[in-house]
Amino acid sequence: MKPLPDAAQAGFVLRPVERWRHGTVIREDDCIAEEVPVAMVYNGATFAVMMATPHDLDDFALGFSLSESLIDDPAQLLQLEQNSLLEGIELAMQVAEDAPGARIGPERERLLPGRSGCGICGTRELEQAIRQHPPVGAGRTYTRDALERAQRELQARQPMNEATGAVHAAAWATRDGEIALVREDVGRHNALDKLIGAMRRAEIDPENGLALVTSRASYEMVTKATSAGITMLAAISAPTALAIELARSAGITLVGFTRPGSHNVYTHPDRLLPVAGQESP
Amino acid sequence: MKPLPDAAQAGFVLRPVERWRHGTVIREDDCIAEEVPVAMVYNGATFAVMMATPHDLDDFALGFSLSESLIDDPAQLLQLEQNSLLEGIELAMQVAEDAPGARIGPERERLLPGRSGCGICGTRELEQAIRQHPPVGAGRTYTRDALERAQRELQARQPMNEATGAVHAAAWATRDGEIALVREDVGRHNALDKLIGAMRRAEIDPENGLALVTSRASYEMVTKATSAGITMLAAISAPTALAIELARSAGITLVGFTRPGSHNVYTHPDRLLPVAGQESP
Repeated sequence: MKPLPDAAQAGFVLRPVERWRHGTVIREDDCIAEEVPVAMVYNGATFAVMMATPHDLDDFALGFSLSESLIDDPAQLLQLEQNSLLEGIELAMQVAEDAPGARIGPERERLLPGRSGCGICGTRELEQAIRQHPPVGAGRTYTRDALERAQRELQARQPMNEATGAVHAAAWATRDGEIALVREDVGRHNALDKLIGAMRRAEIDPENGLALVTSRASYEMVTKATSAGITMLAAISAPTALAIELARSAGITLVGFTRPGSHNVYTHPDRLLPVAGQESP
Repeated sequence: MKPLPDAAQAGFVLRPVERWRHGTVIREDDCIAEEVPVAMVYNGATFAVMMATPHDLDDFALGFSLSESLIDDPAQLLQLEQNSLLEGIELAMQVAEDAPGARIGPERERLLPGRSGCGICGTRELEQAIRQHPPVGAGRTYTRDALERAQRELQARQPMNEATGAVHAAAWATRDGEIALVREDVGRHNALDKLIGAMRRAEIDPENGLALVTSRASYEMVTKATSAGITMLAAISAPTALAIELARSAGITLVGFTRPGSHNVYTHPDRLLPVAGQESP
């Protein structure tokens, strides 16, 4: 068995397992991804509880608040306190009085109750399910090599997933495909929210680089990318039809099945540069 | 390109794609999984909106209602109407007056608002995040061969995923590993809810067979299995720590990384029979 990474750092715990391998049972400890209820609390009122990996929670608080339109700007998140309770973790946030998140209390309920991090589930009315954001900016263009480099580099930058096999990653790559930020979480929506929070913290221009996710590209993933102003979203796995529709109208370049030597471009392929003489007619 | 299955039957649509394959661009149509907002409406009040594959929605309505404790028994789901609206699909359900789902209206709000199909997101308070169900029954025992057979057979029984690569499956296998039911959905929670609904419709004994899911085993998946009385849950991918904890206390045999020739048993391995003379000391 390979040496164990530092569990406290890596988002996992050890649990006994019976491994069945071609007719033999081996009993040992296995690295298992943590999954913890995390309550998102705004000015004393709980907005939602998410099941999440309890790491990079400052990025999560910021990214979730932005993605769910509970703040319009990072400056509106005035304070963040992380309280470990018996039932899970409470992210107690203080947001500015003019932030939408200041109006979720029981008396001043104007937001959707319980809309959660996937951007849709918990929504109570069909009319509210599909959220409109303004289209993203023009952004830059990218070579196929940059996309491939990002995909290749990300594989080596997922310590939690390497230990457990249960964790998604969302990464930010520079224009030449160098991985600048990686965030991991048991939930793919959470991983993207963490990345969005980390990007805002690092003051990264979302139009000058690309986001890469190790999951599928569903509607909610494209919604989050749109609200963050990301112009190119590459997924390791497949998109859904609604994700394609949203990416088209939002002006996002949506790439799927990003693998070594191959990928599929579903919308706005103009941001990916052709290679001279190799393009089919 | 392989011949296309019947799109109307298979849960997907055709969308143009630019396939990049080792330096060449190929433009063609790709099979893309549908993803539609589905509103779960109980006696006129919307409980949640789920993003789902618009197939087997009668199974989904029943399974979701049971998993979310909106009905205690299938007989309490009196009527189901499926309305196609501009924004998505409305599943308008009429439930018995003594069903919990009859009390979600704005005046009679006693349930969690907006708790959604994953069993956790949308929950607004930490204390409500972890739901307690009574432990499952003793169930039966299974051979390793039955588990392997179920895994092998399921691979050939996922038409939506074969077409799109974007869809999860949840399946029910008999005691000897024969696949009896399969339900597919873009969401793994929805796929399991559809399976649970289909099992109740077919009056399948949840203690005499095993459930197999093509996804990870997170907390919410084990919660749904517990509430359905399923005694053995096998996932193709990894479990989380909280899922293991719940499976242990609920009495469920939780299997992960179910692959040809190998699998990991995390809880209650006694339901999987050893093979004589091959077990390690």
